[in-house]
Amino acid sequence: MYIDNKHYRTIWPSPRCQSVEIINQTLLPFKFEVLQITSLTMMVEAIRTMQVRGAPLIGAAAAYGMALAMREDDGDASLQSAAAQLIAARPTAVNLAWAVNRMVETLTALEPAKRNINAWQQAAHIAEEDVKKNQAIGEHGLKLITGAYDGSTFNVLTHCNAGWLATVDYGTALSPIYAAHDAGLAVHVWVDETRPRNQGASLTAWELAQHGVPHTVITDNAGGHLMQQGQVDMVIVGADRVTAGGDVCNKIGTYLKALAAHDNHVPFYAAVPSPTIDWQVKANEIDIENRHEDEVLTITGLAQDHTVQQVRVVAEGSPALNPAFDVTPARLVTGIITERGVFKPSNLYQLASQLKESVGNPV
Amino acid sequence: MYIDNKHYRTIWPSPRCQSVEIINQTLLPFKFEVLQITSLTMMVEAIRTMQVRGAPLIGAAAAYGMALAMREDDGDASLQSAAAQLIAARPTAVNLAWAVNRMVETLTALEPAKRNINAWQQAAHIAEEDVKKNQAIGEHGLKLITGAYDGSTFNVLTHCNAGWLATVDYGTALSPIYAAHDAGLAVHVWVDETRPRNQGASLTAWELAQHGVPHTVITDNAGGHLMQQGQVDMVIVGADRVTAGGDVCNKIGTYLKALAAHDNHVPFYAAVPSPTIDWQVKANEIDIENRHEDEVLTITGLAQDHTVQQVRVVAEGSPALNPAFDVTPARLVTGIITERGVFKPSNLYQLASQLKESVGNPV
Repeated sequence: MYIDNKHYRTIWPSPRCQSVEIINQTLLPFKFEVLQITSLTMMVEAIRTMQVRGAPLIGAAAAYGMALAMREDDGDASLQSAAAQLIAARPTAVNLAWAVNRMVETLTALEPAKRNINAWQQAAHIAEEDVKKNQAIGEHGLKLITGAYDGSTFNVLTHCNAGWLATVDYGTALSPIYAAHDAGLAVHVWVDETRPRNQGASLTAWELAQHGVPHTVITDNAGGHLMQQGQVDMVIVGADRVTAGGDVCNKIGTYLKALAAHDNHVPFYAAVPSPTIDWQVKANEIDIENRHEDEVLTITGLAQDHTVQQVRVVAEGSPALNPAFDVTPARLVTGIITERGVFKPSNLYQLASQLKESVGNPV
Repeated sequence: MYIDNKHYRTIWPSPRCQSVEIINQTLLPFKFEVLQITSLTMMVEAIRTMQVRGAPLIGAAAAYGMALAMREDDGDASLQSAAAQLIAARPTAVNLAWAVNRMVETLTALEPAKRNINAWQQAAHIAEEDVKKNQAIGEHGLKLITGAYDGSTFNVLTHCNAGWLATVDYGTALSPIYAAHDAGLAVHVWVDETRPRNQGASLTAWELAQHGVPHTVITDNAGGHLMQQGQVDMVIVGADRVTAGGDVCNKIGTYLKALAAHDNHVPFYAAVPSPTIDWQVKANEIDIENRHEDEVLTITGLAQDHTVQQVRVVAEGSPALNPAFDVTPARLVTGIITERGVFKPSNLYQLASQLKESVGNPV
C-alpha cells in the first residue's frame, strides 16, 4: 500500500533481521511514525498498547516477536516465556495465539542454534501468507464490483477499519476497493466513523486518502439514509469471526448497516481470510465483550493547538455501556468474500470441503 | 422539570415582564447557566446561536421575542421588523414561523398601546400550550409503558434529545419516561449519543440525570445489538415532521433503530405534539438538509484542563457528508404518541378528524 507514493507494509524486518519496523497506529491519523522494535519486550508492548492492531497484523507481529526472542536467546526457556508473554499481551486475539503456537511448534522441534534464522523465515512466511490471502480477497471482490459496475461512480460503504492497517498489506474489506481503484474503476467509499474508537474516521479515511481513493466520512447514523437515497451500491465489512452458517461477528454497528442494506436491496458482504471462519461456534454462543465505558464517555482528537487531546463528551455522572461487537445474522449477508472465492452463507460448507482437501497446501 | 431539586422550565418571563430568562443550552452538559434576555436583539441571537433549541422551545422563544420587541417599541414598523428578524434567525424552523405569525396576527389587530401587555400574555399562552400538550403526551405514553410493564426494569431506547430541554417543559419522547419514573415504575433509558452533535450524550443524559432517571449512554452503533439481546422493551423518539401516513422524519440514525426494533419485535413509537404532523407532505418530498461537514470532522467536549474544546476526529484532508435527518417509513412505526392519544400510522386520519372538529378548542 502507498503512503506519500512510497510502498509500505504495516510490519517488516530490518535488512539483516536485527529488528522489526512497524507503523505506530496509535498516532494515526495525526502523525505518521515508524517504530523500530528491537526486542521481545518492545513487541509485547507494541501489541498490548495497540501500536499494532487488527487480527492478521497482530498475528504477524507476534511471529516476529518470537523471532526477536530467538535472536536474544534461542533456549527452550526463552521460547516458552516469549510465547506466554506474547499471548498475554492481547489474551482474546485468536490470530495471535494461532501464530505463536505455530512458531512454538516448529521451533521446539529444532535444535536451538537453528531457531533464530528459522524463526525469522517463518515470521516472514506468516506475513507473506497474509498478504497473499488479502490480495486474493481483493481479486474475488473486484469481480463482484466489476459485475455491478455501470461506468458511473460505484459507492461502497464500509464500517470500522478492515484495511491494510489491520493486516500486513491490502486489508480485507478494503482489498476489493483498492483492486477496483487500481483497475481504473470510479469507486468511492462511504466511511462510517465507527464510534467509539473511530477507526473509520481515523484509520480507514487516512489509508484511503494516502492511496488516493475518493471517500467521504459519515457518522454511523447516516448509512441507512444514504441507502434509502440509492447512494450505496455495496456494503463490504471485515469480520472478527464468521460462523459456519455465515453469521458475521464484527465491530458494533455492523448489524444496523446490514439491516439497512437488506431493506434497500443493497448487497452486503463480509471479506475475511478463511481462518476467520470458526467452524464450531454458533451465533448465539459468541460472547460479546463489553469494553471500558471511557471509550464512550471520551473521544480523542487533534486540538486547535495541534496536540492530541482526549475530551469528555458525555454529561458528568452519566454511565455508559460499550459492547464492542455485534452479530449480523446470515439471512442479512449476501456473501462472504474469502481468498478462495465468494460464498453465500448457505454455501460455506463448500469452502470447508475445499480447505479440508488442501490441508498443507494453503491458498 | 427538576435541576438540583429545583423546578425549572427552559424559558420563563421575569416577574414584571421586563425580560425573559433561558437556560443557555450551548454550555450543557458542562455548565448550567441561566441567561437574562433583555431585548429582541438578544433573543434573535439566542435562537440563532442555539442557546435555545428544539422546535417547541424555539416557538415559545420567538413569541417572547415579539413581546420584548413590543416592550421596546409597540409601533407597526417595529412589529414587522421584529417578526422578520426572528424568522430569519432559524429560517427552516416551522414552529418559529408559526409562533411569530400567530403573534403578528393578533398584535396587528390591536392598537399599539395594547400590544405590549397582550404580547406577554400571548407568549405565556404559547408556552403554556406546549407544556400542556407535552404533559398529555406523557400521560398517553405512560399507559403504553404501564401496559407492557411487568415489575422488572423497563428499558426504553431514545435517540437525540426530545426531552424538556427541547420544549418548554416535559419534552416529547422523554415525557412518557418522566411520567413513568414519577409514577414509581422502574424505567431505565438507553441514550444514543447521537453523532454528530451528540445531543443524546450531552443533553438527554444531563436532563435524565438531573431528574434522577436511571440511564446509560451508548454509541449510536450499539442499539441494534442491545435489541438482539432482549435489553430494549420500547423505542421512543421525537420527530421533526410526521406525514399523514405516519412516516417519521427525525434526527439522522432514527431509521436504523426503527429497522432493528422491527427485526427484534420491539415497539417503536414517535412522540409528537399534533402540529408536528404535516398533513400535506409525502415522505419522498421531505428535503433532507445536509449540515456543515465540520460537525462530523470535529467534536466538542471537556478537556482535562476543564475547558470546553473542539477536537478534530477525522484524518486531515478527508471530506465528510452530514445529512441531518432521515425518514423512517410508517411500516416500521408502531404508533405516534400525541397529546390526543396514541395512533397507529394507518389511523392518523382519525386524529386529523378530531383536530378539524375541535378548531378553536385545542388540546
